[in-house]
Amino acid sequence: MEIAANDPSLKSWVEIPVDSDFPIQNLPFGIFKENGKKRAGVAIGDKVLDLSALQEYGLLNDLSLPNKVFDQEVLNGFLHLGKPTGRKVRNRVSELLQENNDELRSHYALGSILFDQSKVKMCMPVQIGDYTDFYSSEQHAFNVGCMFRDPKNALMPNWKHIPVGYHGRASSIIESGIPIHRPKGQQKPNDEEPAVFGPCKLLDFELETAFITCGENGLGEAIPVEKAEDHIFGMVLFNDWSARDIQKWEYVPLGPFLAKNFASCISPWIVTLDALEPFRIEGPKQDPPVLPYLQYEGEKHFDIELEVAIKPEGSEEKVVGHSNFKYMYWNMAQQLAHQTVNGCNIRTGDMYGSGTISGPESSQFGSMLEISWKGTKPVSMPDGSERKFILDGDTVIMRGHAKHNGLRIGFGEVSTKILPAK
Amino acid sequence: MEIAANDPSLKSWVEIPVDSDFPIQNLPFGIFKENGKKRAGVAIGDKVLDLSALQEYGLLNDLSLPNKVFDQEVLNGFLHLGKPTGRKVRNRVSELLQENNDELRSHYALGSILFDQSKVKMCMPVQIGDYTDFYSSEQHAFNVGCMFRDPKNALMPNWKHIPVGYHGRASSIIESGIPIHRPKGQQKPNDEEPAVFGPCKLLDFELETAFITCGENGLGEAIPVEKAEDHIFGMVLFNDWSARDIQKWEYVPLGPFLAKNFASCISPWIVTLDALEPFRIEGPKQDPPVLPYLQYEGEKHFDIELEVAIKPEGSEEKVVGHSNFKYMYWNMAQQLAHQTVNGCNIRTGDMYGSGTISGPESSQFGSMLEISWKGTKPVSMPDGSERKFILDGDTVIMRGHAKHNGLRIGFGEVSTKILPAK
Repeated sequence: MEIAANDPSLKSWVEIPVDSDFPIQNLPFGIFKENGKKRAGVAIGDKVLDLSALQEYGLLNDLSLPNKVFDQEVLNGFLHLGKPTGRKVRNRVSELLQENNDELRSHYALGSILFDQSKVKMCMPVQIGDYTDFYSSEQHAFNVGCMFRDPKNALMPNWKHIPVGYHGRASSIIESGIPIHRPKGQQKPNDEEPAVFGPCKLLDFELETAFITCGENGLGEAIPVEKAEDHIFGMVLFNDWSARDIQKWEYVPLGPFLAKNFASCISPWIVTLDALEPFRIEGPKQDPPVLPYLQYEGEKHFDIELEVAIKPEGSEEKVVGHSNFKYMYWNMAQQLAHQTVNGCNIRTGDMYGSGTISGPESSQFGSMLEISWKGTKPVSMPDGSERKFILDGDTVIMRGHAKHNGLRIGFGEVSTKILPAK
Repeated sequence: MEIAANDPSLKSWVEIPVDSDFPIQNLPFGIFKENGKKRAGVAIGDKVLDLSALQEYGLLNDLSLPNKVFDQEVLNGFLHLGKPTGRKVRNRVSELLQENNDELRSHYALGSILFDQSKVKMCMPVQIGDYTDFYSSEQHAFNVGCMFRDPKNALMPNWKHIPVGYHGRASSIIESGIPIHRPKGQQKPNDEEPAVFGPCKLLDFELETAFITCGENGLGEAIPVEKAEDHIFGMVLFNDWSARDIQKWEYVPLGPFLAKNFASCISPWIVTLDALEPFRIEGPKQDPPVLPYLQYEGEKHFDIELEVAIKPEGSEEKVVGHSNFKYMYWNMAQQLAHQTVNGCNIRTGDMYGSGTISGPESSQFGSMLEISWKGTKPVSMPDGSERKFILDGDTVIMRGHAKHNGLRIGFGEVSTKILPAK
């Protein structure tokens, strides 16, 4: 798809640091808080461009936008206008930021339109209606199957037929930068002894991405796989915190519950699927063939490099895993087609996690469960300590970007510090 | 707890039909649509009392309510004020409706305040933040365990230690009266043959109740069991539709997903926990003893009779199950304490399903799976047909009420017709 704002030759009059996640070809949407007020913005280099100001100054007048659509605490109203409108706004913002354009640059007080990212607070970009977490990386499902079942039958019989997923908790999804307390809960560390209650001992991250939907299908109306991307506005990084010991005792037969719902954390900028267009690639051959409602044409996977680091308190960080979104067996279009094939209705602002994304090499695993192989292979940290799982005081940082021919489209990061249990 | 509006001797100047679910001692809250406009109301006999009109006329002036709190499309704003405010409003409405009170009766045009329930449309009472479904009836868990595992080890090892639950889909919870289409999805009817796609063949109801929360705990703050009821505003009937064949193929290892999220249906009136006070009873002795965070004092169970009927197209209905909310092993306070013990945050308008409520007798089972014992014991209908599961054209109707010493507090009904798959 040709999108004007994606032209790799574009340059901006805003200075873009080398290796910035946010060149003029990205222009992700977010909610920032400045001078006590939340509103919508776009990232450009190290700056945030205030969309509500652009609209107020009449610079978006030709786009037929609702009044004050960016002067809101969440992006739901804007996203609900759909992807074609999002594309028009992104193209227009690109125009205004191009080096040869002086509409904005020369005629307005930039101090009230363009803010340093370091001086504003990034907030939750959407009010999440429902949240689903999938389980769509084959290597991750295989690793878990090897550890807890049988390496010869590591994948469940349904795994290559269904993009397996489950519903999660929307209320506890928070933005990057908010420290969370280690959760407490029931565990049964020893089969022979009674269950105990206390702080989770096996706290883990899961390196994921998530997509955010726009528009609604009616209840009872499936979204076919070929139309699914019309409802996928963009993506964020997603840390699906997991309490492995709580999970082990609770999850049979109805799935993870308190092991997951104490917090999940996202990066604050919604990178549009439009901005990721240049990074489409083919997915893995799906064998056995999937049922017709899951069959797709074209490149529906994306080449996005991901990494996760642990930063012990007062120490430097260490990257403990490098992965890539291309390792997904099931793509986002298949996930959304599956989610709605029974008539389940989606809403603007829903969030859909990928599941832990692990690559084929052990350096590409996306959770400590896999990286430390159930705690049998501790990882050494720069301060000399070791990690099997996450300790109090650790900060877990995830980053992601796509890169090709000198063009880098990044997500920023999601960074969360673990405080001791209350 | 002494609540003025619960006085069993109260009588209203509104005529209350014999065996009405909505005497002056009930006064449940809901959202109704009349003359094209949604607003909040209270049920009294066969009527709906318009709360927004009461506030507009100044009849609620002493309660320090926010302006137009009832002139809303959902009750979230009102519920967010908390249970003490809800109690004040219910007490005041009771006063206005008492036979010796003429403040409302004699001074206002009742035609614009009091509407026939049959002439208004009842709507979703809240915007649901998150929805959890528990699995808290021992007989139901035992029946399922007998059918799919081993009668000698029917309950999972964790079942008597944890109020097992899972997250469900909020977007597809709808009010009574909306027909739904039979869902389609992947099934694997035969282990030896490939999975197939098509309309669900084993469509089932689950007879449940659900409670709705008010107020918020902060992320990271547990709600102790003794304070949980402060956050439980009231209850509705809940039909947790289930596609058994889809469920069987998809649910290992992450729990039910498309088998449940095509629709769940609720009765439209929120019966307050206050109105149910007279029906508190002791729960079952929990053995083995539960961990301290789940231990409770006092009567936290409620004696509420429940029934479920099937009405084939063009025929009379047949009640196929009689159960009672008292058969819960885990009570609502335990469920909410468990949900939040890891710091998971609740919000006003969350919904928490009980899980299928089955009693000890086979006439008291709460799903067709159990009633027909996996299809081996068909139920005969008044029109001569038989049911193992739900057929196209069937309407499933659930009703509930508490009754004691001549006082009846009812829920009305949740009634949903099944249309053929699209």
